[in-house]
Amino acid sequence: MKLLKEKIEKEGNVLSDTVLKVDSFLNHQIDPLLMKEIGDELADRYADEVITKVLTIESSGIAPATFLGLTIGAPVVFARKRKSLTLTDNLYSSKVHSFTKNETNEISVSKNFLSPEDSVIIIDDFLANGEAVKGLLDIAEQAGAHVVGVGIVIEKGFQDGGKQLRKQGIRIESLARIKSLANGKVEFFEDGEF
Amino acid sequence: MKLLKEKIEKEGNVLSDTVLKVDSFLNHQIDPLLMKEIGDELADRYADEVITKVLTIESSGIAPATFLGLTIGAPVVFARKRKSLTLTDNLYSSKVHSFTKNETNEISVSKNFLSPEDSVIIIDDFLANGEAVKGLLDIAEQAGAHVVGVGIVIEKGFQDGGKQLRKQGIRIESLARIKSLANGKVEFFEDGEF
Repeated sequence: MKLLKEKIEKEGNVLSDTVLKVDSFLNHQIDPLLMKEIGDELADRYADEVITKVLTIESSGIAPATFLGLTIGAPVVFARKRKSLTLTDNLYSSKVHSFTKNETNEISVSKNFLSPEDSVIIIDDFLANGEAVKGLLDIAEQAGAHVVGVGIVIEKGFQDGGKQLRKQGIRIESLARIKSLANGKVEFFEDGEF
Repeated sequence: MKLLKEKIEKEGNVLSDTVLKVDSFLNHQIDPLLMKEIGDELADRYADEVITKVLTIESSGIAPATFLGLTIGAPVVFARKRKSLTLTDNLYSSKVHSFTKNETNEISVSKNFLSPEDSVIIIDDFLANGEAVKGLLDIAEQAGAHVVGVGIVIEKGFQDGGKQLRKQGIRIESLARIKSLANGKVEFFEDGEF
């Protein structure tokens, strides 16, 4: 996605060979127009599928997931990382390790909002080791829901998550796929290259 | 806001005299079309103001704030409840106590995204004791930013936050104001009634 890659080149901050900071438009400050374009692009890529539910995880997945949900006319469910007092039982849960934050969270989704009748698309801001997506796949599986695929804003293609998931036959659409962050420079995969 | 009140009446779940669960459309599952309507309504109510930044807090404020941001052409910044490794310093911080979750979080916003040049609207899903809004006001004040007002999806008018903030001269626009949750029933304030 051209607009997204340009934004990453212009505003992305390469902190190390593995860490790209994009908090000026994606995961702290949000560019609403870019999020809308991302939602529309994901809707285009999955136009061949019937989707009844968009599943994401708080917090940075919510904006792109909600625009996708608006475009395709499906509700969005975001997995919570911690339990709240008004959300105490009747939950599907899974464990997700964040290498960036170096912590393991239990994520959970109310059983009210995912069922075997659902065809689910999983959305997240980043795909690196694939931990969050695996947790969301686990939750969808517990619900007996069908997963049509995954939509990712930025995939770190030099890390292993995307490869592992594709090997399992899971469809992944990443709008920007990074080949390398070496030498403080963002290098993208060309479309189709892998 | 009629559509919102109808949604609360239809899907809201009164758990006690103080707790209203609206996780089917606002803070776990999200109704994207309703969020868009909420964003548009908030834009209408603040049409007399120039706003350069929408400030909210993860997670349930993000969807309405992002639609508002799209409509008025302003970026959204969401305060984080915990620090991440890629967001470690250069922060405005404040403490927020959640009575619902019975915990105190430090919330923070990068100094890169709020400045004395900003005219800020503060958005949140609920206003009850006003703790989150006070924390966001504190952060805006640290940044030297001007706050034009506050936009709330659901105000629990029987709790004290709204009253306290209005007494300080802060403009608050709440799209649904609840008078009482007694006897398992949601009763709204009429428009203008307080």
